[in-house]
Amino acid sequence: MNKQQNILIIGAGLCGSLLALRMGQRGYKVSVYEKRPDLRQVNLDSGRSINLAFSDRGNKAIKLVGIEDKVKALCIPMNGRMLHDIEGNTVFAPYSGREHEHINSISRGALNALLLDEAEKHQNVSIYFNKKCKSVNFEKTTALFQDYETKNEFIEDADVIIATDGAGSIMRQSYYLGKKFLFSFSQDYLTHGYKELSIFPTENGDYKTYKNALHIWGRDSFMLIALPNLDGSFTVTLFLSYDDGAYNFNNLTTKERVIEFFRKYFKDALELMPNVVDDFFKNPTSPLGTVKCSPWHYKGNTLLMGDAAHAIVPFYGQGMNASFEDVVEFDKVLDTYKGDWETVFKTYEASRKKDTDAIADLAIDNFHEMKGHVNNAIFREKRNLEMALEKQFPNDYSSKYSLVTFNEAIGYQEAMLRGRAQDKAILNMLNDGTLNLKDDLKIILEKVKKETEAILEDDRIAGLK
Amino acid sequence: MNKQQNILIIGAGLCGSLLALRMGQRGYKVSVYEKRPDLRQVNLDSGRSINLAFSDRGNKAIKLVGIEDKVKALCIPMNGRMLHDIEGNTVFAPYSGREHEHINSISRGALNALLLDEAEKHQNVSIYFNKKCKSVNFEKTTALFQDYETKNEFIEDADVIIATDGAGSIMRQSYYLGKKFLFSFSQDYLTHGYKELSIFPTENGDYKTYKNALHIWGRDSFMLIALPNLDGSFTVTLFLSYDDGAYNFNNLTTKERVIEFFRKYFKDALELMPNVVDDFFKNPTSPLGTVKCSPWHYKGNTLLMGDAAHAIVPFYGQGMNASFEDVVEFDKVLDTYKGDWETVFKTYEASRKKDTDAIADLAIDNFHEMKGHVNNAIFREKRNLEMALEKQFPNDYSSKYSLVTFNEAIGYQEAMLRGRAQDKAILNMLNDGTLNLKDDLKIILEKVKKETEAILEDDRIAGLK
Repeated sequence: MNKQQNILIIGAGLCGSLLALRMGQRGYKVSVYEKRPDLRQVNLDSGRSINLAFSDRGNKAIKLVGIEDKVKALCIPMNGRMLHDIEGNTVFAPYSGREHEHINSISRGALNALLLDEAEKHQNVSIYFNKKCKSVNFEKTTALFQDYETKNEFIEDADVIIATDGAGSIMRQSYYLGKKFLFSFSQDYLTHGYKELSIFPTENGDYKTYKNALHIWGRDSFMLIALPNLDGSFTVTLFLSYDDGAYNFNNLTTKERVIEFFRKYFKDALELMPNVVDDFFKNPTSPLGTVKCSPWHYKGNTLLMGDAAHAIVPFYGQGMNASFEDVVEFDKVLDTYKGDWETVFKTYEASRKKDTDAIADLAIDNFHEMKGHVNNAIFREKRNLEMALEKQFPNDYSSKYSLVTFNEAIGYQEAMLRGRAQDKAILNMLNDGTLNLKDDLKIILEKVKKETEAILEDDRIAGLK
Repeated sequence: MNKQQNILIIGAGLCGSLLALRMGQRGYKVSVYEKRPDLRQVNLDSGRSINLAFSDRGNKAIKLVGIEDKVKALCIPMNGRMLHDIEGNTVFAPYSGREHEHINSISRGALNALLLDEAEKHQNVSIYFNKKCKSVNFEKTTALFQDYETKNEFIEDADVIIATDGAGSIMRQSYYLGKKFLFSFSQDYLTHGYKELSIFPTENGDYKTYKNALHIWGRDSFMLIALPNLDGSFTVTLFLSYDDGAYNFNNLTTKERVIEFFRKYFKDALELMPNVVDDFFKNPTSPLGTVKCSPWHYKGNTLLMGDAAHAIVPFYGQGMNASFEDVVEFDKVLDTYKGDWETVFKTYEASRKKDTDAIADLAIDNFHEMKGHVNNAIFREKRNLEMALEKQFPNDYSSKYSLVTFNEAIGYQEAMLRGRAQDKAILNMLNDGTLNLKDDLKIILEKVKKETEAILEDDRIAGLK
């Protein structure tokens, strides 16, 4: 293979900069074009997605490119959910019964800056900022860009183009509008939007509430969450319907209404956020959407990756992790078929799409779990039981959450199928009394395993597979 | 309510012409704009969708507008599937155990012509042909048209616009491209396409094979079907992958390959189609897609209906029936909320969308059933059992097929949930020996009902509903 092949990457976000780093390590000549300015020089965050959950699937990619320690320095471990009820009482619900398993809060900007720095260490990687992609000619493998400052337009060609330009991908739009091939595509919006708020540090720079948790104020039809930042602050996000219910984004239009809403539903959070009204009216309300599409590639010319191929809602904390895992999976396929881009792209999509479809669906599941089910008695009983099983049988049991988040050796689809069957088994056995919590945990484990297998087998037979 | 409100309907296909008729009957001033010429004067069919399956849900609408007898005269009853195996052997599999239940083959063109004639009998209904819609301004409730002959463009306004302009709806595209509101949208293509072929009548004008059935040559990864026409011919459709398998649309490029393919897999059909090669190369290959979207309406100004709102694949024979049922459901809501279009549109979508989503998914299910499962031993055993149950307990049992096709009093979603649970119950009980076919049918019925309820209940608990 000609190592000097030109790879054009559209978008220098988390996925694009990681991919550039990896392709640089592999010796390709990599050019990255990013529409925004260099975030290492300009503060771009304006109340949207300031921090993210980073976990084991993402870490596979970070290990692959050899910067695990540098990323770890940016992480704040979150060992579980801190559930806040309407009275302000809290319960801590761990993510896993295995002590070493946790997720991490990480700053989007700091991680992106690190990846850009690492990518630029390679002489064969060039990153250009303020270059907005306008369209991609996937038949000719060229892309049209516009310089933000000069407004001049220019065309770049390459041996292959990989678009990592996010949920609003321009290359995906070129696929859709081009009508040159059958392009399956979906964009699905939730009826809820989100708005970022913040809990500032104390005067001494300390955390105002427990640091090592993802805080959740679940209120069934809406919720508030908070993730810690290294500077002692928390990034808070309100998920709320645009239109439905007594309080919604369309009718929270005055200072008084906002205070009233927070006082009624998030009393303890309000005490930590004297700044809530300012944040509420300063920060935008953003939609929550899922994007799926296929094919991701056009012949051996172009490929969609990361959010450009599969944008998901944030509720499983897997958006970035899924995009990072894309790079790992792509890299594996490249080992096997390098030199034949069409086969690389086709093989990659054939093995990967089922998993990104699954995490999209799981993320919707978790929206309902976080805002409501965490308050449900039978659901809590299930979680407590699962924590006990994971603790006593660390090698024999993993909850759906663990399968998705900590079992990075299996794909999202397998995690989804097994995880949903386990949930169904436990919830039904708790409901009909088949599970007796006073039984030996070993007996309970066997019952859960047997019932889970029966559920999976019934589904297989009904599907005539 | 002002009965002289102007209703603009885009598209005079089956749904649009039925809607025009109904709105005309209600006294509205209705203008219909259709991009094609008047099909009563020009033969438009060119190897695409010449006949359709018409059944009970469609007939609800035909009864509503009072033309049941006229439609009946166009119908050829199909009482079941005639399954053709690879050797040319046939088995007849009825659609129902209740003798009066059947579906009908009907000519799209003849039915459309009838609906246009009936609509035009109303002085308050005007239909304009050769007027192509270019875009809809849903904020102003206006539509831009182009005259096919003069090429002149003109704008029409109305009190409300209802787009019944099919799977490629221009108004839906205006919603999508307008980005004025969050528009969820999906287009999903199967990897299979279709091509229409034909079996001509005998020299005496007789049917060359059994008239009152839907013929199926299911070959697991592809299939051929045939529906009878009033003139003694059959419209035949080949469903085949574009790319996969030894024979596919992309590699069937020579006369010899086409003959070889038919000789190998459809020996008995080939004997009835000496014209197959001509048809194959003359007729286009068309894609099979599902379209879902939401919202269907913009405020009280505009509404999508029929395929424009929910295009489905043809395998349940429900595309036209679903669109006709739209008119019935819309008409009901109009009775309740007439005078308040926004409430009419919102209420209609809120009650209807779950059902059109369900029939879209059911139609995909049936693709797999028709091409493969009909040949599967346990599936045939299930169907035989269900026919016996329907025959012996006509008021107590309906298969999934019957729930969808003949139980027009329940919605598609309810039919889907109950039908899938029944299938799962029977297939699993047959598989594990819980059902003994020598048992009394009454005992079998009770077992099936009990197991179906258990499956639905387990799902409810797992969903925490």
